[in-house]
Amino acid sequence: MSWVKEVGGQPYILIRFGGEIGVKSSRVRVKYEREVLRGLLRRLKKAKVNYGNPHYLFGRVYLPVEDVEAALKEASKVFGISSASPALRTTSSLEDLVKLGVRVASACLRPRSSFAVKCRRVGEHPYRSPDVVKAVGSAILTNLKELGVRVDLDHPDFVLGIEVREDVSYVYLGEVEGPGGLPAGSQGRVVCLISGGLDSPVAAWMAMRRGCIPLILHFDLHPFAGPETRDKIMDLAKVLAGWMHGGRLKVYVAKHGKALTEIKEKAPDRLTCILCKRMMYRVAERLALKNGAKGIVTGDIIGEQASQTLANLAVIDPAVTQLPIHRPLLGFTKEEVERFARKIGSYEVSARPEEGCKAVPRRAATRAKLEDVEEAEESLNVEDIIYEEAEGIEEFVVEGG
Amino acid sequence: MSWVKEVGGQPYILIRFGGEIGVKSSRVRVKYEREVLRGLLRRLKKAKVNYGNPHYLFGRVYLPVEDVEAALKEASKVFGISSASPALRTTSSLEDLVKLGVRVASACLRPRSSFAVKCRRVGEHPYRSPDVVKAVGSAILTNLKELGVRVDLDHPDFVLGIEVREDVSYVYLGEVEGPGGLPAGSQGRVVCLISGGLDSPVAAWMAMRRGCIPLILHFDLHPFAGPETRDKIMDLAKVLAGWMHGGRLKVYVAKHGKALTEIKEKAPDRLTCILCKRMMYRVAERLALKNGAKGIVTGDIIGEQASQTLANLAVIDPAVTQLPIHRPLLGFTKEEVERFARKIGSYEVSARPEEGCKAVPRRAATRAKLEDVEEAEESLNVEDIIYEEAEGIEEFVVEGG
Repeated sequence: MSWVKEVGGQPYILIRFGGEIGVKSSRVRVKYEREVLRGLLRRLKKAKVNYGNPHYLFGRVYLPVEDVEAALKEASKVFGISSASPALRTTSSLEDLVKLGVRVASACLRPRSSFAVKCRRVGEHPYRSPDVVKAVGSAILTNLKELGVRVDLDHPDFVLGIEVREDVSYVYLGEVEGPGGLPAGSQGRVVCLISGGLDSPVAAWMAMRRGCIPLILHFDLHPFAGPETRDKIMDLAKVLAGWMHGGRLKVYVAKHGKALTEIKEKAPDRLTCILCKRMMYRVAERLALKNGAKGIVTGDIIGEQASQTLANLAVIDPAVTQLPIHRPLLGFTKEEVERFARKIGSYEVSARPEEGCKAVPRRAATRAKLEDVEEAEESLNVEDIIYEEAEGIEEFVVEGG
Repeated sequence: MSWVKEVGGQPYILIRFGGEIGVKSSRVRVKYEREVLRGLLRRLKKAKVNYGNPHYLFGRVYLPVEDVEAALKEASKVFGISSASPALRTTSSLEDLVKLGVRVASACLRPRSSFAVKCRRVGEHPYRSPDVVKAVGSAILTNLKELGVRVDLDHPDFVLGIEVREDVSYVYLGEVEGPGGLPAGSQGRVVCLISGGLDSPVAAWMAMRRGCIPLILHFDLHPFAGPETRDKIMDLAKVLAGWMHGGRLKVYVAKHGKALTEIKEKAPDRLTCILCKRMMYRVAERLALKNGAKGIVTGDIIGEQASQTLANLAVIDPAVTQLPIHRPLLGFTKEEVERFARKIGSYEVSARPEEGCKAVPRRAATRAKLEDVEEAEESLNVEDIIYEEAEGIEEFVVEGG
């Protein structure tokens, strides 16, 4: 993306919005686009990247920036942006377009590269889009003859984009991928259950990408799990906070050891994980209701673990009565979750070793019955445990890494 | 993949299982692998592709088949298979391995191709894996000298794989992607709500990939929607049935027009979609309970439509009290759903034009309150409507296309 510096002039970044924003009513679309842009500007400010006035252009934005590389890096972390490209601006005279097109191509194309030129145009001009494509394409072929470059419309190595609007035009080349989705925070709060594993941070991120503000909730399983898990949680929260435009989020830690001890002592061993999760969900629901959150997000994948069989999910769910449980990873494969975790930046932290829960039974139920679970809960002080645990929740603010 | 025919000899396909199967306990792993293989054999039989006895080899299977292309095509539709490759078999003498390696390379490599050789070995042999790699690699370089082929370990155009076990070895090259996931049907039934749109068939497929057996439920909105939607549903069901190893699935159609009429007449316009969905979910729950289904699957994406805002999902959910609502697409972007729809084969059908629901209000609530919704429902004959609609559900069996 360093071609902008090489060619010289005021650098711009071209911002494209996700498909879901484009299909909204024009009122909502404009609102969302402004929110997405505001998020980007906030990030740029935080990263100390100077920028000028944004130029709106048919559902895209051209933003003048000081440092293109740094600006693109921030754009790639803004929910609602599907991609962003470095760009330069010139007048809409065909001569200037050809001149800039050739300079950009000279800076980017390598020996025997293939390329294509594409053009979109709005306004009154003495030429049409195909004329621009032809003029710029021919000029590149002539000027870069010694490199042996060639035109390939199907699978070009490089695409030179030109957008002509009235008397101003932009030339762009290359792009970075954004996460897409809806503007950060546009949907409201959810409580996201995070363990030290691979799945739950990805699930939280998926919800964030759809406009949810995550309240991270971790259940500390001491004495059934080691202290290293809590460090992982804080590091995972840091990774997720890096995706918040404000760079911070709240982490809540509940001490679940007492609940788990009670379960281990009084309930059938094979139901341990199901009862444990039902307790967690109840505590999560309390936290959610207290903080105006509209759902609980978990990293469950159907059939991934014994407690996540289709049958067991149906038995765990009814523990929460006032809020939906959202499970964005329900249908994922292990490979897909890993791919997302790498993209999000959580993979390395999740992969760090931890002791794992020592309360997991040797033979867990895979098809528990609700009546058995409810019977087992009758011997537990469910209400008291939940109340005490919810009251004792610790709160932290984590800053993005 | 036609290199197998060119080289000649008994063709095999190498089957690799998804990552989620590999991490199961050995008891479950073996059970799941056999179920996946059984699914493949069932498909092969149906497609009239002859096969021989499978050869298990460290969590992979080599299956002798008559027609490699046809067998790979079937393998790419078997849940639990992450990928499959065409392969040939030989003895484990280094001489035979080199000979077969060179013949495979000759059939596949093109002028100036880059390649890499990799080898896994178990058993007693007079050589080690690196010796095989070296011998086969050198022989290919020598024999294909006139093509100008070269070794590239990082980004090879072709990877020649060799698996040596005791006195039998396999050479494979190229692969087709499988869907991954869990064995078809291993988790039990779910009711999948399908509209004529893009999202819901993808959601159903995601559940199928995690071992769910879908009972397709469509709500016919006549007179608020056109008759073309029902044709789309049947064609979408055909596409999904193509992913069932038995090649068929059940489609249920409920007549929702009366419920919607009642809602339109008696309830606040802005709550129409929310009330309509709550009615649908109740009917779905009845169908699910009647058929032993353990959940309801929908194509909801957070914030995609007015009825899918985080706030509205929280208001729609409580209509179902006995089963979880699973929404595998919650965190997806529009682009990701499209990519899956193309892979599944549902994209073209979903993209066909349809009239769309005429009951949708001009200004739908995006943050409905549960008390308002419950108040509105008091004026409706909810129980009667649900009962009548559930009783009148039509049932169809659809065969895969």
